[in-house]
Amino acid sequence: MIRIFHENDRVAQQTAQSMRDRGVLAVNLLGAPGAGKTTVITQLASRMPKGSVCCLQADLESDIDTQKLTKLGVVTKQINTHGTCHLDALVIADTLTDFLPQNAKILFIENIGNLVCTADFKIGEHVRILVSSVAEGSDKPYKYPPIFQSADTVILTKTDLLEHVDFNQDEFIKGVNALCPTAPIFFVNGRSGQGFEEVISWLISRNAQA
Amino acid sequence: MIRIFHENDRVAQQTAQSMRDRGVLAVNLLGAPGAGKTTVITQLASRMPKGSVCCLQADLESDIDTQKLTKLGVVTKQINTHGTCHLDALVIADTLTDFLPQNAKILFIENIGNLVCTADFKIGEHVRILVSSVAEGSDKPYKYPPIFQSADTVILTKTDLLEHVDFNQDEFIKGVNALCPTAPIFFVNGRSGQGFEEVISWLISRNAQA
Repeated sequence: MIRIFHENDRVAQQTAQSMRDRGVLAVNLLGAPGAGKTTVITQLASRMPKGSVCCLQADLESDIDTQKLTKLGVVTKQINTHGTCHLDALVIADTLTDFLPQNAKILFIENIGNLVCTADFKIGEHVRILVSSVAEGSDKPYKYPPIFQSADTVILTKTDLLEHVDFNQDEFIKGVNALCPTAPIFFVNGRSGQGFEEVISWLISRNAQA
Repeated sequence: MIRIFHENDRVAQQTAQSMRDRGVLAVNLLGAPGAGKTTVITQLASRMPKGSVCCLQADLESDIDTQKLTKLGVVTKQINTHGTCHLDALVIADTLTDFLPQNAKILFIENIGNLVCTADFKIGEHVRILVSSVAEGSDKPYKYPPIFQSADTVILTKTDLLEHVDFNQDEFIKGVNALCPTAPIFFVNGRSGQGFEEVISWLISRNAQA
């Protein structure tokens, strides 16, 4: 197992360097099934220069999200893992060979919807964004600490549902801060578009550091 | 890997037989993080004779849900997997050794919130219940087919949010029916309690068959 991680990390590092050389920020987008990962991408892409955002979309099966993004003009490639619970660096390196568009500045890699296994594997990213929805409840940091610990930022989605669900903001913020004290938390609403400008500012600042 | 599954299935079969001999229906409760698995248990337990429901609660960390259930008088034991993404038959057999209350009729085993890895492992259950929330979206059967395929019934939770989220009921039902044609789908609302009586009738019918 140690040897598997070693080989994975070596390839992940290569991918990250190669993206850096091309001026592309690679984002590993993590979250539970239905957290709103694809909506985060569509909202961000619609606010950025055309062609600057591209995407790798992972799901066990189906190309539902790739179809959504392609319709919006985001160059997207589908990865179907056929049962595998996470992406790894070798799959990403292989998929990127013939993919990256000329003018890309940000590559979103939407991982499998999974709050456990995806945390363990670097895939070549410069930053990890963890997407969590208010409908999932405010106890998630306490129940799934490793993935929160690994996050560079947390995006809390579906804030339009706050008045309809039992979500304790203080509990959530306290839990996140305890696990990743330097990670900012963004509150967003995928229906109104609220909160996404702030995420873009953060991404741009990270791109300069990448 | 084949040998691991073989040993797991052997122990799962033993557990299922031992529960059957004691007149207990063992339920493997599956679903994504925040789908509402614990609320399903609390709603069902509150409608059944005191002491007839008991529970094993699995989470990577924390005993938040065990505390909730214990407060309601449901005898519950916590399993913390410390990073492991699913339960297996050996863990359950070991945990049950000193657990099962005298008058128990139904044992709920709430699995780790995970729509991928939990599908592969029998843990000694007689039935599998898959909990899916309307907030997760109606495309879940298409993206995570193996776990839907393995379900004996699907409980659709948080139906009070239907008017606030993009959830296509026809798409969801069609997807579920294609993967598990004999599994009934129950629509429930954990806030009002709507729909849980029907789940109890189904559980009672399954108990008679166990």
